[in-house]
Amino acid sequence: MTDGFFQPVSGSVLPRFAGIPTFMRLPHVPPDHPRRAEVEIGLFGIPWDGGTSNRPGARHGPRALRDASTMVRGQHGVTGARPFAAAACADLGDVGCNPVDMMATLEEIRSFVAGMAEEGIRPLAMAGDHLTTLPILRALGRDRPLGLVLLDSHTDLYPPYFATTFPTHGNPFRMAVEEGLIDPARSVMIGMRGTCYDDADRAFARDHGITVVPMHEVFARGVADVTAQARAIAGNGATYLSFDIDFVDPAFAPGTGTPEVGGPTSAMAMEMLRALKGLDIAGADLVEVSPPFDNGGITSWLGASVAFEILCLMTAGAGAG
Amino acid sequence: MTDGFFQPVSGSVLPRFAGIPTFMRLPHVPPDHPRRAEVEIGLFGIPWDGGTSNRPGARHGPRALRDASTMVRGQHGVTGARPFAAAACADLGDVGCNPVDMMATLEEIRSFVAGMAEEGIRPLAMAGDHLTTLPILRALGRDRPLGLVLLDSHTDLYPPYFATTFPTHGNPFRMAVEEGLIDPARSVMIGMRGTCYDDADRAFARDHGITVVPMHEVFARGVADVTAQARAIAGNGATYLSFDIDFVDPAFAPGTGTPEVGGPTSAMAMEMLRALKGLDIAGADLVEVSPPFDNGGITSWLGASVAFEILCLMTAGAGAG
Amino acid sequence: MTDGFFQPVSGSVLPRFAGIPTFMRLPHVPPDHPRRAEVEIGLFGIPWDGGTSNRPGARHGPRALRDASTMVRGQHGVTGARPFAAAACADLGDVGCNPVDMMATLEEIRSFVAGMAEEGIRPLAMAGDHLTTLPILRALGRDRPLGLVLLDSHTDLYPPYFATTFPTHGNPFRMAVEEGLIDPARSVMIGMRGTCYDDADRAFARDHGITVVPMHEVFARGVADVTAQARAIAGNGATYLSFDIDFVDPAFAPGTGTPEVGGPTSAMAMEMLRALKGLDIAGADLVEVSPPFDNGGITSWLGASVAFEILCLMTAGAGAG
Amino acid sequence: MTDGFFQPVSGSVLPRFAGIPTFMRLPHVPPDHPRRAEVEIGLFGIPWDGGTSNRPGARHGPRALRDASTMVRGQHGVTGARPFAAAACADLGDVGCNPVDMMATLEEIRSFVAGMAEEGIRPLAMAGDHLTTLPILRALGRDRPLGLVLLDSHTDLYPPYFATTFPTHGNPFRMAVEEGLIDPARSVMIGMRGTCYDDADRAFARDHGITVVPMHEVFARGVADVTAQARAIAGNGATYLSFDIDFVDPAFAPGTGTPEVGGPTSAMAMEMLRALKGLDIAGADLVEVSPPFDNGGITSWLGASVAFEILCLMTAGAGAG
Amino acid sequence: MTDGFFQPVSGSVLPRFAGIPTFMRLPHVPPDHPRRAEVEIGLFGIPWDGGTSNRPGARHGPRALRDASTMVRGQHGVTGARPFAAAACADLGDVGCNPVDMMATLEEIRSFVAGMAEEGIRPLAMAGDHLTTLPILRALGRDRPLGLVLLDSHTDLYPPYFATTFPTHGNPFRMAVEEGLIDPARSVMIGMRGTCYDDADRAFARDHGITVVPMHEVFARGVADVTAQARAIAGNGATYLSFDIDFVDPAFAPGTGTPEVGGPTSAMAMEMLRALKGLDIAGADLVEVSPPFDNGGITSWLGASVAFEILCLMTAGAGAG
Amino acid sequence: MTDGFFQPVSGSVLPRFAGIPTFMRLPHVPPDHPRRAEVEIGLFGIPWDGGTSNRPGARHGPRALRDASTMVRGQHGVTGARPFAAAACADLGDVGCNPVDMMATLEEIRSFVAGMAEEGIRPLAMAGDHLTTLPILRALGRDRPLGLVLLDSHTDLYPPYFATTFPTHGNPFRMAVEEGLIDPARSVMIGMRGTCYDDADRAFARDHGITVVPMHEVFARGVADVTAQARAIAGNGATYLSFDIDFVDPAFAPGTGTPEVGGPTSAMAMEMLRALKGLDIAGADLVEVSPPFDNGGITSWLGASVAFEILCLMTAGAGAG
Repeated sequence: MTDGFFQPVSGSVLPRFAGIPTFMRLPHVPPDHPRRAEVEIGLFGIPWDGGTSNRPGARHGPRALRDASTMVRGQHGVTGARPFAAAACADLGDVGCNPVDMMATLEEIRSFVAGMAEEGIRPLAMAGDHLTTLPILRALGRDRPLGLVLLDSHTDLYPPYFATTFPTHGNPFRMAVEEGLIDPARSVMIGMRGTCYDDADRAFARDHGITVVPMHEVFARGVADVTAQARAIAGNGATYLSFDIDFVDPAFAPGTGTPEVGGPTSAMAMEMLRALKGLDIAGADLVEVSPPFDNGGITSWLGASVAFEILCLMTAGAGAG
Repeated sequence: MTDGFFQPVSGSVLPRFAGIPTFMRLPHVPPDHPRRAEVEIGLFGIPWDGGTSNRPGARHGPRALRDASTMVRGQHGVTGARPFAAAACADLGDVGCNPVDMMATLEEIRSFVAGMAEEGIRPLAMAGDHLTTLPILRALGRDRPLGLVLLDSHTDLYPPYFATTFPTHGNPFRMAVEEGLIDPARSVMIGMRGTCYDDADRAFARDHGITVVPMHEVFARGVADVTAQARAIAGNGATYLSFDIDFVDPAFAPGTGTPEVGGPTSAMAMEMLRALKGLDIAGADLVEVSPPFDNGGITSWLGASVAFEILCLMTAGAGAG
Repeated sequence: MTDGFFQPVSGSVLPRFAGIPTFMRLPHVPPDHPRRAEVEIGLFGIPWDGGTSNRPGARHGPRALRDASTMVRGQHGVTGARPFAAAACADLGDVGCNPVDMMATLEEIRSFVAGMAEEGIRPLAMAGDHLTTLPILRALGRDRPLGLVLLDSHTDLYPPYFATTFPTHGNPFRMAVEEGLIDPARSVMIGMRGTCYDDADRAFARDHGITVVPMHEVFARGVADVTAQARAIAGNGATYLSFDIDFVDPAFAPGTGTPEVGGPTSAMAMEMLRALKGLDIAGADLVEVSPPFDNGGITSWLGASVAFEILCLMTAGAGAG
Repeated sequence: MTDGFFQPVSGSVLPRFAGIPTFMRLPHVPPDHPRRAEVEIGLFGIPWDGGTSNRPGARHGPRALRDASTMVRGQHGVTGARPFAAAACADLGDVGCNPVDMMATLEEIRSFVAGMAEEGIRPLAMAGDHLTTLPILRALGRDRPLGLVLLDSHTDLYPPYFATTFPTHGNPFRMAVEEGLIDPARSVMIGMRGTCYDDADRAFARDHGITVVPMHEVFARGVADVTAQARAIAGNGATYLSFDIDFVDPAFAPGTGTPEVGGPTSAMAMEMLRALKGLDIAGADLVEVSPPFDNGGITSWLGASVAFEILCLMTAGAGAG
Repeated sequence: MTDGFFQPVSGSVLPRFAGIPTFMRLPHVPPDHPRRAEVEIGLFGIPWDGGTSNRPGARHGPRALRDASTMVRGQHGVTGARPFAAAACADLGDVGCNPVDMMATLEEIRSFVAGMAEEGIRPLAMAGDHLTTLPILRALGRDRPLGLVLLDSHTDLYPPYFATTFPTHGNPFRMAVEEGLIDPARSVMIGMRGTCYDDADRAFARDHGITVVPMHEVFARGVADVTAQARAIAGNGATYLSFDIDFVDPAFAPGTGTPEVGGPTSAMAMEMLRALKGLDIAGADLVEVSPPFDNGGITSWLGASVAFEILCLMTAGAGAG
Repeated sequence: MTDGFFQPVSGSVLPRFAGIPTFMRLPHVPPDHPRRAEVEIGLFGIPWDGGTSNRPGARHGPRALRDASTMVRGQHGVTGARPFAAAACADLGDVGCNPVDMMATLEEIRSFVAGMAEEGIRPLAMAGDHLTTLPILRALGRDRPLGLVLLDSHTDLYPPYFATTFPTHGNPFRMAVEEGLIDPARSVMIGMRGTCYDDADRAFARDHGITVVPMHEVFARGVADVTAQARAIAGNGATYLSFDIDFVDPAFAPGTGTPEVGGPTSAMAMEMLRALKGLDIAGADLVEVSPPFDNGGITSWLGASVAFEILCLMTAGAGAG
């Protein structure tokens, strides 16, 4: 890495709003690239929203996130961390999703991530709707179930939608539990709010031992207390971190499929991420950014900023070694 | 109600974004409907903004609120309350407002609500500008003055505008006091902020014994303290609850006629509503949602979410019996 | 129909922007409605975009079209036709689509329209992406192939997308030909333009005898000449009329999934529709209105205006008898 | 005028996007201004939309038009005319409208224009909804009826709305005829289209001898033929020119209250205005620009460009002497 | 001032959304105006963004701020202060900036403000990008360095951009320190956050003795503590107050060039400004409002509200005497 | 080129809305790329708007154009031309512009293009404001003056702006004539319209022998006549083709800095380009796409479509050999 190949394009060479946009201005390193073997963390897009039961558009998320992310600079403003110096990060491109074929696409995603895993590249997925997390977990949690930290306004533990046997973005974690991909005892879900159909998702969580911390409880207990609990639940084992942009209040993240009012500010969300330092992150994602419903790009910019926080966690935690 | 008639259309029959939109997917029950006599709480629209002194557009509020409200599910996320199971709720349609005739419209509204009152239906109005609250109070407060809980960034106790004798959306409560429709001693106004012309409205409140809690005081004292005071002021008597969407900060509710910066977040607003549990609500409204100034529907969605909170209060409070 | 039941709600009873929005303010007549047997033309929504290979959002089309269509008045401005007086028209509601299950949804649509056909109701579908035309044709063209008049910027005769066996919104008419639902010799496609992958669609048209009139040819020959040819091709037999909103230039119809520049103005498009008078229309649709990409509702309003033109054709042509 | 006082602020002194915006960067000349007596043509705003039966917002038109109009330069691109050199033009400010009092406002407008007329200032009104034309005609047509050239998608000859006695923006010309303010025989209305309630407006026109040229006839006959007819109808007498921005197709003018598809392009509209040269214009207006429904200011910019064309007509015609 | 000349136009004479917009409806007082000598505080625009390294558009800020500011009323809602009664305030118009000539423009600004200073008028600049602060400081701090209170998400102490010798909006305060225009020991910067290139700006601050309070520290310590420190640092000497709108979170202020997530709410920002009461303000500015990136004017309205707060500080502090 | 390297990424491998966006999905071939020597036509971005005298934002044009252009397919819909098969085309990335240093940037651009010329790569620039054409001409026209075909609503032959010596986007062609880079006798400018300051630009054209065809003349004479004249003027010599997106009417291209109403439709513009076939194009550009003022991306999509037409001209004309 001494040759600067894995460093973002400098703002002094090309203004940050200019140039072909890759995630955080990192080099594009496709499978046949000569430097591929050096990659430690791979950012990649999943341009797909075929699991969406409400407003679509998350298929356009990766491109909007690439665009916004070229404004990310290399050093964390609070901690001083420099993730691009700490690990070889690259943009691996997008998974070849098929917008009209769910099953083929889920397998494409699984295969893409399984390939990364074999190469020793930790994934940071820029999706896409939340169903895309399921095939990632199928790739990463096949051999042993992972811990899970989910920041979201919904549990995504719902029963099948519309009496169909197809999965949707409302049940990736229910299926992941049923498939043994995550360990319920090491799983925590934070930020739930809004109206519910019934108690089916919470009952599933209770029955399997998943910890759910609804948003009003986060406000009551505070960030430090809740994040300490989350770190304790996830423990020292390999953990998956999933951030649904609808975790944040719609005023800060209007560009998403199923917004719920009453969420945290962006400042509170960023503080929570920082406080999760120490997790052993085997993989992570940012999901549900839907550009057609965004306002002036504020959701994409928040998403890119969240992705940088996650990258700092990935290069600071146990998995970074 | 055992036949499911008064239940919202299920999301498993028709996706929540689909179908002819009624408020919260409730049945449309016009005056001549065979099930009309069973209705306990009536949601209805007041598509009128003829009292607006600044940005218009609230006439389009009811339709946008119906559209957004089909995303509301049946169970409260924090309390578990199920208002549609607790009372027979229905969409009664819109008042036949005349956009160019204020006096005829005010009488249309009064008559519409008076009819509901005679039928024993408690009103939840989806307006419309804030002047529409005046004819509702004329219908509900004619026999005995009501208590009032107002969440708003303005007192709406201003003197007539532009030296006219016409009322505007700036003085419904001043007129309601003068007409004996509300009891000042049982009235509380919360959230006032922004610049003022002078002290005329506050002086009127002081002179008549209305309690005003400006926004900076809410921030200083906290939600629990202020809402406890509000419940104490309103007491056990029949009370009207009015929620002006400009109570919430413009970042959360840009789609309104006279926004004022420095307001609460949506989370704080929802918390305040929950804390008002126990009021004996004779009627309620949500006003001043102006879709032409909204961004991606976030104001309408907040408005629909607020209306659900109010509905939970109406079915939980003393009036629910 | 003498009792006014099938007449749109008058703008003198309720302003046209007000009230629960049904298509063109027509009565909502679900299957169990007492007046159902009288319906001659049924407008219905298909809130689905699962066949979309590019920008999604057409699932939100029916609701936006209902909203815009309440501005449609009862009399045609040029011809004086009064379709609501000529036939009993009603809003039949939406097909119960499943956003994540293509095959189930295609069958739902087919079944919905087949039921209408059995009741003797001619369908005017407000979709949805263009794949939804396929199941409509399966319902209407099962017994004998229909003629086809297509106004579109694409032929939608493309081979399967992405090497999948699934259909998409790019091949409904190819499949309809292969399934014998439309008669190629009585089919004409008007308005094609923009870049192409290759000649596969045009070759298919040539091989099967479908007439294609690309947009530059329409500009060169003029509306009268092209529409006379279209009427001659369709002849006197039962014909399906399909209008893809991307037929019109993106300046007039930005809210669609795959816009192509270089299209007609709205005036030219309306003139073409009027000139198609005399077709024996067995069914019709308006597709690909995608509200998330619209600007201030101009696409929805154009779509509603187009639907009214089609309704006038349906009540004026041979099928109207 | 040799001292440059009545010339627009130069783009070389202050960029055209900068500075306090007055109409076309002309000097603001209120009633008490020392140069008031020199003004020949007065541009003024009517920030009012209280006569609007559909989408409001035209009250914000004058401000948006001032903003856009600072981009207007001094010389006509086709004719080379320089209206600011030909006549002393000034921005007279806005009429003091009351948004909640129709009758008081109509009188305010009448009085404002009557005052101008007494001072010998010809009015070019930047409104406001179309009802504001009525009081202008009351001021200008009191002594002798004026000829009328109307470019609009509606006749605005409709009966009272909603069974009310109040006027609306749908009937200013009906009332003007009834009050003897315009001469039907010297009146022509161009561009009508879209759906109608019935024939009431056209019948009124026929009965009184007003010439109506619907849009499809304009397309068929061409600009030269229609405008020649219009000039012949108006003749040599004093004539009022009224331009409703909804005359132009919604793609070019989305920011208006009641758009109708199938209208002319901006190029055709501008060509028509140029072809009206020779009218003796006693006064004129541009109405129905509604900024809340505009897209990126294109409607306001079109409105400002139209106003400049009108100004060129006013300084070139018989009235200019 | 007893004649009302320096009072804003009353909302009872002209609705607040109407009329030619000046800052806060104050009189326009250009250099040659007869009342010029009486002006104590001058609001003026700097329509220029030539120092912007990222998203442009702040050149359009002054006009949008004038538009929004006409909604500001005369009395502070919390303190009751009436700045327009306390000092003669006026709109002095815009500096004649040249969008393509940085050096000429910086001198134009300096000269404009130096002129005001000679006339004894305290400046409140409505800019414009942040580089415009540099020439203001050159005008005001020439004789003795000023204290500085900066509310911003960036320090603007960065080294030259792109290896150029030109200044940008990223280094006005670095240059001001180097030119001796501000006193580092009496300077405090509050609200910094987001990613950094490196430590160059913070190192500069440390080396020169400027106090930097990053945003996460503000959240941890609270408004009262941080503002008390700021007042102590600035002390009793003449101080410059600079407010970059990107200080506030993008949800509240999307319309700016370089937004950073994780900022304060508008309520917190307003509270901070109020808590700065007592500063001896020699001049102030509001910068970086970029209307092309705004949503529905919420950023401009926040900017206008901030400017009113600053005006209250200017008329309440030591400099007001 | 038999190995497919220079072919756009197929829509069957990755949906067209997905993947890292390069111009038309062509390979990114920076200077040190092994296939660089094979490139025949280079598309590149000029992310700069420092010459803009009105609305900025064209610096964001290249990125928006890359995004939109991934929807371009490989075959022309009318002519069947396949430019990517006819010549080796590639995305060369962006020029390293400095947003705050005009002179350095103009030299960067000149140097970038001069380098391409030396490599034998014909340039197709995606800018940026129109001033960026000047340094391109300095690179291409140094040895012998080029013919010029300009499609634009302005001549860009204006004198210096604001009495400055700096160039702006209003005078690149004036300077190009003065520097001998273009041959006036072989230069034609088409589409001029809108208001003018004076006759300075037209006089310059007349004096130097440049042919100007204003828009109203294009409408009167027709596309065939005007384009035949243009081809005749340019003749057989090397010619530069410059397309300012403001050539098209603002309804079709709202996202630009200085829109002028009364322009052609997109269909007419595309027809004009096709009719220019046969020009010997030494280089070309598409300028003035300003995304912050665009609506739903329609301007970017039009720009990408125009660029494809230009590419077809470049591979079909004399220079293609």
